[in-house]
Amino acid sequence: MSDENKIPYKIYLNENEMPKAWYNLRADMKNKPAPLLNPGTGKPLTAEELSPIFCEELVQQELDDTTPYIDIPDEIREFYKMYRPSPLVRAYCLEKKLDTPAKIYYKFEGNNTSGSHKLNSAIAQAYYAKKQGLKGVTTETGAGQWGTALSMACSYFDLDCKVYMVKVSYEQKPFRREVMRTYGASVTPSPSETTEVGKKILAEHPGTTGSLGCAISEAVEVATKNPGYRYVLGSVLNQVLLHQSVIGLETKAALDKYGIKPDVIIGCAGGGSNLGGLIAPFMGEKLRGEADYRIIAVEPASCPSFTRGTYAYDFCDTGMICPLAKMYTLGSSFIPSANHAGGLRFHGMSSTLSQLYHDGYMEATSVEQTSVFEAAEQFARVEGILPAPESSHAIRVAIDEALKCKETGEEKTIVFGLTGTGYFDMVAYEKYNNGEMGDYIPTDEEIAASIAKLPKVEG
Amino acid sequence: MSDENKIPYKIYLNENEMPKAWYNLRADMKNKPAPLLNPGTGKPLTAEELSPIFCEELVQQELDDTTPYIDIPDEIREFYKMYRPSPLVRAYCLEKKLDTPAKIYYKFEGNNTSGSHKLNSAIAQAYYAKKQGLKGVTTETGAGQWGTALSMACSYFDLDCKVYMVKVSYEQKPFRREVMRTYGASVTPSPSETTEVGKKILAEHPGTTGSLGCAISEAVEVATKNPGYRYVLGSVLNQVLLHQSVIGLETKAALDKYGIKPDVIIGCAGGGSNLGGLIAPFMGEKLRGEADYRIIAVEPASCPSFTRGTYAYDFCDTGMICPLAKMYTLGSSFIPSANHAGGLRFHGMSSTLSQLYHDGYMEATSVEQTSVFEAAEQFARVEGILPAPESSHAIRVAIDEALKCKETGEEKTIVFGLTGTGYFDMVAYEKYNNGEMGDYIPTDEEIAASIAKLPKVEG
Repeated sequence: MSDENKIPYKIYLNENEMPKAWYNLRADMKNKPAPLLNPGTGKPLTAEELSPIFCEELVQQELDDTTPYIDIPDEIREFYKMYRPSPLVRAYCLEKKLDTPAKIYYKFEGNNTSGSHKLNSAIAQAYYAKKQGLKGVTTETGAGQWGTALSMACSYFDLDCKVYMVKVSYEQKPFRREVMRTYGASVTPSPSETTEVGKKILAEHPGTTGSLGCAISEAVEVATKNPGYRYVLGSVLNQVLLHQSVIGLETKAALDKYGIKPDVIIGCAGGGSNLGGLIAPFMGEKLRGEADYRIIAVEPASCPSFTRGTYAYDFCDTGMICPLAKMYTLGSSFIPSANHAGGLRFHGMSSTLSQLYHDGYMEATSVEQTSVFEAAEQFARVEGILPAPESSHAIRVAIDEALKCKETGEEKTIVFGLTGTGYFDMVAYEKYNNGEMGDYIPTDEEIAASIAKLPKVEG
Repeated sequence: MSDENKIPYKIYLNENEMPKAWYNLRADMKNKPAPLLNPGTGKPLTAEELSPIFCEELVQQELDDTTPYIDIPDEIREFYKMYRPSPLVRAYCLEKKLDTPAKIYYKFEGNNTSGSHKLNSAIAQAYYAKKQGLKGVTTETGAGQWGTALSMACSYFDLDCKVYMVKVSYEQKPFRREVMRTYGASVTPSPSETTEVGKKILAEHPGTTGSLGCAISEAVEVATKNPGYRYVLGSVLNQVLLHQSVIGLETKAALDKYGIKPDVIIGCAGGGSNLGGLIAPFMGEKLRGEADYRIIAVEPASCPSFTRGTYAYDFCDTGMICPLAKMYTLGSSFIPSANHAGGLRFHGMSSTLSQLYHDGYMEATSVEQTSVFEAAEQFARVEGILPAPESSHAIRVAIDEALKCKETGEEKTIVFGLTGTGYFDMVAYEKYNNGEMGDYIPTDEEIAASIAKLPKVEG
């Protein structure tokens, strides 16, 4: 089946070929990701300490770095079937437009109303909350994709859903709010006056347009103060990467079906949920010495945690009430320019990916906003999908890699994650269309200032 | 393969199972749809007369009521592969929620950036324009789906695209405009001062929020006054129903694969492009006496051309510069309430569907806006797709039919067309979420007044 002519535009697995278990990448890591620490004691957090914040089974998944496969419950698999398997698309039109000998594939996760891969973990987290008999969950959302995904998942399992939405996104994306409301969620712009931490942040930074870190602090406060509620998070955590492994497992199954071996795998990286999910089984092979792949994380130049951050313990939130995670970070007080469009605005990065990057298993690069939108427009015009700004970071680098192949004549196989669609990002596209979009790169001084505020932790 | 357990949530045909020819329903009609008339002479329009308005091959397709199958050119089939075959979805979750013995299927056409089925005809019309060596095309758009689809198609073939967008939609949907601009189209709110007919309509109805009929007049004027341009239309015409037959052909192939025979087929109807496409091969069997199906057209109570219009020759546009078509019409001066959300706001109906309805081959029903959005929300919450207001008309009636089955215990198989997604309709959803949406049903006097202005034509 490796005959070039046999590869369709879109490779769909059958429903019975969908993964029956998530893959836990940590099981194959020799250097495990550093544990979450209790900011009060400086000691690794126990399941007991995490349980007031997260659902019990999710705490187990968060802490489990040895079990390689964890079964996907039937209820979640049934929900997955509403929008999965997602297509692996051969970008024939893009290849032709670029006139490149490279073969480009993308795993498209945008064919659902949340518009992104976030639904893969949202439904899992909602399921475990329901199973535990909870009333509801709280969360934050940046670009709005995670909040939408969680609203859909909670509606499906009849759970209450309280979303704190980064204020700049709330204002830029009123329609995202309405999608969440249509699914029955309540949406509050963050920082807000509804929490202690929100009031404090507003007092210190009046007029702030918010950050993911602020919104996390508010959502965690509400979850811990309301009986029957827990907090859920759309990225960064090990449990989220575990759920998102469904992306990579499907990608690998589809490639294997046609005997295709990728040379380069590219994913955008904010907190790391898409990248960690997409690369999981490939990285597993690499860790076990069974195969080699070039793996590239792409982040915005306006929020460059891998490429300009430091590898250290830091708070996951601006309000400094969350656990400490060891990660590449710009400092929890870092807030990217309000002119940065879309998501990928978290100050830190998944501990798992941070460890892998630190150990040299993957590369990272940062790209500027206008060149990202240029790639987005080029992609939209030939591939017929208007991509999310986040996803377009990966498109930018995939195009650049394909153009390098054009120079060298190499027929590399490039796979990238197209995490979602940009239908709720038209304010940003309008800016780009009007030539009003700029690039917002933090100065060395800015980054140094927020890094100077890192908590003092050994390890 | 008729084993119930074997039917997946989503039936995807393989690319090589996609239709290679469109099906021309008119070939099987004993009573052919009445021809377009020249409003000046009252005589059937010839190919020569139509050529200044439409591309030559499209004129042939418009007039051909005898050839049953017309090959889909390879270039169009290649483009189709970017987003087709579209899934036929078994609505297991909706069935469960309704607790109905009915089996519900929907053909989902929203998995592309235009967000609807409109792309099926847009790419065909752009292809023939390119083949003829034209510079560009002009069109109108109501809800914006057709304009977006045409922008995508023109961008693919490097054609200029000028879109006249009904003013109320232009204002309610600024983001639709930006999608079109991202694909390189120019977008003008209609009525505008850029055309003679627009100026005239504005003088007569200052402050009008526009109508599809007005926008058509403007687009036709621009196409006929600019050398190298032709006009294209997203619905109503025979050629459009021909291209849209790909929906029904795929639906039938997918059902046949699993040995499923529908009892009821339901589609929303504005100008008739989706309904005509969805039902084409089923109606063909019915016309040839090979099978029987109940076929239901669903239209908004605010623009009820089938259910409250009259079957007569009328102008296709408000400006009365277009050919006359025999159809169910509310009169070309009828303008639906600005409070009506989404598309389905054309005053008339496809001549082909009008003839079939007149001859008793199908039913029609009208539904009110708030009950449409109620169905939309219910569907979104269980099926995970936030539907377009247009599509939700079909959802409403599909749910009603399934609930009737619940009462009678009948295990009917219901198939409906889910034409698209509502991601650009959140202003309307917001109104619904806030309890501010009303129903806008024209009075008998209103309809009588516009019907009184019908042109006097024999036939």
